[in-house]
Amino acid sequence: MDGDHVLLYLDQRRTFLVKVEAGKTFHTHKGFIKFDDIIRKEYGSTVLSSTGVRFTVLRPLLRDYIMKAVRRTQITYPKDIALIIIFSGIGPGSQVAEAGTGTGALTTALAHFVRPNGRVYSYEVRGEFLETAEKNLKRAGLMEYVELKNKDITAGIDETGLDAVILDMATPWLVVPHAYKALKPCGTLVSFSPTIDQTVKTVEALKENGFIDIETVECLMRGMQIERGKTRPQTLMTAHTGYITSARKALEPVSEKEA
Amino acid sequence: MDGDHVLLYLDQRRTFLVKVEAGKTFHTHKGFIKFDDIIRKEYGSTVLSSTGVRFTVLRPLLRDYIMKAVRRTQITYPKDIALIIIFSGIGPGSQVAEAGTGTGALTTALAHFVRPNGRVYSYEVRGEFLETAEKNLKRAGLMEYVELKNKDITAGIDETGLDAVILDMATPWLVVPHAYKALKPCGTLVSFSPTIDQTVKTVEALKENGFIDIETVECLMRGMQIERGKTRPQTLMTAHTGYITSARKALEPVSEKEA
Amino acid sequence: MDGDHVLLYLDQRRTFLVKVEAGKTFHTHKGFIKFDDIIRKEYGSTVLSSTGVRFTVLRPLLRDYIMKAVRRTQITYPKDIALIIIFSGIGPGSQVAEAGTGTGALTTALAHFVRPNGRVYSYEVRGEFLETAEKNLKRAGLMEYVELKNKDITAGIDETGLDAVILDMATPWLVVPHAYKALKPCGTLVSFSPTIDQTVKTVEALKENGFIDIETVECLMRGMQIERGKTRPQTLMTAHTGYITSARKALEPVSEKEA
Amino acid sequence: MDGDHVLLYLDQRRTFLVKVEAGKTFHTHKGFIKFDDIIRKEYGSTVLSSTGVRFTVLRPLLRDYIMKAVRRTQITYPKDIALIIIFSGIGPGSQVAEAGTGTGALTTALAHFVRPNGRVYSYEVRGEFLETAEKNLKRAGLMEYVELKNKDITAGIDETGLDAVILDMATPWLVVPHAYKALKPCGTLVSFSPTIDQTVKTVEALKENGFIDIETVECLMRGMQIERGKTRPQTLMTAHTGYITSARKALEPVSEKEA
Repeated sequence: MDGDHVLLYLDQRRTFLVKVEAGKTFHTHKGFIKFDDIIRKEYGSTVLSSTGVRFTVLRPLLRDYIMKAVRRTQITYPKDIALIIIFSGIGPGSQVAEAGTGTGALTTALAHFVRPNGRVYSYEVRGEFLETAEKNLKRAGLMEYVELKNKDITAGIDETGLDAVILDMATPWLVVPHAYKALKPCGTLVSFSPTIDQTVKTVEALKENGFIDIETVECLMRGMQIERGKTRPQTLMTAHTGYITSARKALEPVSEKEA
Repeated sequence: MDGDHVLLYLDQRRTFLVKVEAGKTFHTHKGFIKFDDIIRKEYGSTVLSSTGVRFTVLRPLLRDYIMKAVRRTQITYPKDIALIIIFSGIGPGSQVAEAGTGTGALTTALAHFVRPNGRVYSYEVRGEFLETAEKNLKRAGLMEYVELKNKDITAGIDETGLDAVILDMATPWLVVPHAYKALKPCGTLVSFSPTIDQTVKTVEALKENGFIDIETVECLMRGMQIERGKTRPQTLMTAHTGYITSARKALEPVSEKEA
Repeated sequence: MDGDHVLLYLDQRRTFLVKVEAGKTFHTHKGFIKFDDIIRKEYGSTVLSSTGVRFTVLRPLLRDYIMKAVRRTQITYPKDIALIIIFSGIGPGSQVAEAGTGTGALTTALAHFVRPNGRVYSYEVRGEFLETAEKNLKRAGLMEYVELKNKDITAGIDETGLDAVILDMATPWLVVPHAYKALKPCGTLVSFSPTIDQTVKTVEALKENGFIDIETVECLMRGMQIERGKTRPQTLMTAHTGYITSARKALEPVSEKEA
Repeated sequence: MDGDHVLLYLDQRRTFLVKVEAGKTFHTHKGFIKFDDIIRKEYGSTVLSSTGVRFTVLRPLLRDYIMKAVRRTQITYPKDIALIIIFSGIGPGSQVAEAGTGTGALTTALAHFVRPNGRVYSYEVRGEFLETAEKNLKRAGLMEYVELKNKDITAGIDETGLDAVILDMATPWLVVPHAYKALKPCGTLVSFSPTIDQTVKTVEALKENGFIDIETVECLMRGMQIERGKTRPQTLMTAHTGYITSARKALEPVSEKEA
C-alpha cells in the first residue's frame, strides 16, 4: 500500500484522502496516524490514531476523487456528473472534449469512464487551474487518459470526430458552433449552467446550429435519515447546482415544427 | 449500416429503435420507411417516410438502449441508473453482480461501463425475463460482457472478489450477508427500492453485516421548458421512482458511535 | 339541508359539489341519488345511489369550493392559494384588491378569510369570466364580501388604503405602480406567475417602485402513499404551477446596498 | 405608535420585532435606535441608528409574529402553517382545538384566522411553554381568541362540536379517537409530523376511527434569486419539515374498497 492513496474514514462527514508514505504520519483533529500501521493492513481494515480513535482504511472510489478534487471553483456534484455521463452517452473508448477543466473533478469522471482506449481533451483558459487539475488527475491515476489544454475553447476546438463535447463554463453558447464541427454525426453536447439565462442562450444556440433532441433538466437530490421508527428526509439540502442541457448533432436538421 | 440498430427520431416523444435490414420497411403512424433509403445515408441524416414526414437517423446512445429496454417491469430511470453507477464506483474492468436482471435496462448500463475487461453477473429468479434481457443486451452489443444467471440471489452469490453488488429487487436485505462475502474489501453495495420499508430493512441489514459509509438518497429530476420569454419548469414530473442506498464493505466494522 | 350545497364523496378522485333540491335527483356514473334521501340526513352520513353505491354527504370546505371553481383558466392550486394568503398577511377585516378574477378560485379564498368585515375588490378585464366567478362565489356563500369589477387593473386601481394587492395575471409588472398608490404603508403585494420572465419583470418593477422585503419562492407539493410496509411518495406530481413573489410597500425606500 | 410592536427591517435576514416605548432605545449590532424617533413616524418610514444605518419601520404581519414566535421547539414553517389552514377549512368563526401549543406559532396563525367570533382551544402538557406562548399571543394581539390549556390532549378533548382539530405533537395517533368525539360531523383533523412512522400510525388511526378523505402530503419550498441575467434557484433550502395529513369525520364510514 506504500505510495497509494487511501481514504481514511472516520464517519460520513470526516474522510481524508491521503498518500501512504512509509515512515511518515498523518495529523488529524483526533490525533495522528502512523502510515507504517496502515502499510501492513488490508483495505477495509481499521487503524487507531495516537489518541485511540478508530479510522477505516478505504480504497478510494471515483466519487471520493471527485469530491476531494472540488476546491476553489463552483462545485459540480456527483449527481450532476452522473447525469452528464449518462446524457452524453460516453463510455470506454469515447473521444471527449471538455471545458473548462477547473480543478478537474468532471475531468476525473470522464477519464475514469473512457478508459482504457478513449481520451479526454480538457480546455481551460485560466492557466492557474491546470496545475491543480493535473495533481488531482495524477492522484486518481487517470492523467494518461487526459490531454490538458491551456486554451480558450470559445476560439475553437482542435479535435474532430468527437463522441461528445461537455461544457461546464460561463459562456457555453459561444462553443456550440465549434462543437458542431468537432463532433462526429450524432455526437452529443452536454452543458451544465447555474443560471436560467445561460441555459436559454445555450438552447437557442443549439437550435440554430443543427442540434436536435435538445432537453434541459435539473436534478434535486435529497438525503434520507433511515432509522426504524425515526425515518425522515434530512433537514437541509442543496437546492440548486445547475441546469443540464443535452443535444445531439444532426446532419440535416429539421425544425421540430416540420415534424 | 445494414444489420445495425438505429434510432429513428421524429421528436423527443416519438423515437424508434429499429434494426436496419436491406430490402425491408419499417411502419410508423406517419407512413413507412424503406431501410434501403437509410443504408445509403450517414448517421445524423434524415429520411422521408412514405407520407413525406422527415425522421433523423441517429446512432443509439446508452440511454436509448436503456429506455427501450424498459418494459413489463418497474422502470429504473436513467437518472437512477446514473446515480447507481457513480455510487458504486465501478468503471472499465469492474467485476459486478446484479439482481434482478428484469428486462436488462440496468444490466445494459453496467455492461456498457465495465467494458472491455470487466464482467456483469446478473441474477434473475424469474426465467421468463432472461430471454428479453438477452435480446436487449444483444441489441446493444453488450451480451459478451454479461453472464445471465437464472438463480435466486437470496440463496447466495457464486462469485467472490467483486467490486460491486447492485440490487434492484423486492428483498435486497436478504442479499446483504451474501454480498458481504462476495465483495472484495472496500467493495460497494448499491440498492434501489421504491418503498421506505424496504429501505429501512436494507439499511439495518447493512449495519448488522459489516458495511460502513451507509447513505440513502432520492433524486427528483424536473424537465425545463426553455424558450426566451416563456421559460418555466414543465408541468408534470415523476414524483418518485425509488430510494438509492449505498455502502462499503469494511473488514473490522466500527460502530458510528465509537468514532 | 334543502337549498344547501353538499359535497357527495365517493372517493378522493370522485367528489361532486351539488345543490340539494327537494324532489330532484342527481345523476352519477354510479346511478342516481334522490335529494329527498339526503335532506333527512345529517352531514357526514352516507346515502345509497340507485345502483347501491354508497356516497358520503359532506359539508363543503373552502378547498372544495376552490377546486370546483377551477375551470377554463389556469389553475391556482390550493397550495399556492395558501401561500399567497400567508405572504399577504391578510385576515378578517382586510381590504384587498385582486386581479384577474378568472373563475373566482382565488377570490373565493380571499373572501373566505377577510370575512366578516373585510372586502375583496376583484378586477377582471374579460367580462365573460365574471358571470362564472359570481356563480362560484354565490355557491360558496361569499359574494357579499366581494366587489367584482369588469375593469383593466393595468389602467389603475380605484381603491386606496388597501392592506394587500394580489395578482394572478399575465402582466403583473404593469400593475406595480398602481398598487403602490392603492396600498397603505406597509401594505403587501403578492404576485403569482408561471414563467421566469414574468417574475423577473415583476421583481424589477417592485424594486423601482418603492417596495422592500421582495422575495420569490416556488412550492412543490408531493402526495404520499401511506400504508404500513408499502409507504412511498406518489408516482406522479405537478412539477410546476408558478412562482410566488411578495413585497411590502415602504415610504422611503432604501437600496439594499445602502443597508 | 407608542406601545405598539413594530418590525425594524434592515434586510431580509435582519429584522427585529420590538415594542415601541417612549424614552427608551433599542440596541442592534448597527448601533441603537431611539424609539422617540419612531413614534413621530408613519409606518413604512425609515429611521437612522446611532451609527447612521437606515432601518424601515414596518407594521408586523402574521408571518412576522409566526417567525418571531418560533424558538426552543421544532419549527413549523409558514408554508406548513399555510397548508394546515387550507386543509383544515377553518376561517372566521371556526371553533378549533390544537395541540401542542409549543411557543404558540401555529396558535397565533389559527387565532388570526378564526377572529373575530371563533376560538382556539390550545392544549399543552408542558407547562413551561404556556408562558412563552401567552407572551407571543399577546404581542400579536390575539390572546383574546385563545384558551390555553395545560392539559394532556391524549387523555381527552373537553370541547365538542369543533370545526377542526389541529395536531403538531409527538403522538397524534393517540388523539384521533378523542378528536372524532370532539368534532362536529364533517369536521377536519390535520396533523403535522416529521417522521414517516408517526404519519403511518396517524393514518392507520384515522382509518380505524371513522375518518374519510385521508390524504398526506409534503411541501418543498425553494427560494429564487431573481435578477435579470443571473436568475437561478437559491443554493440551499430546507429539505424537510414534516408530513401533513388531513381527514374528515364521517358518520357512517365506508371502506374505500366498498366504494
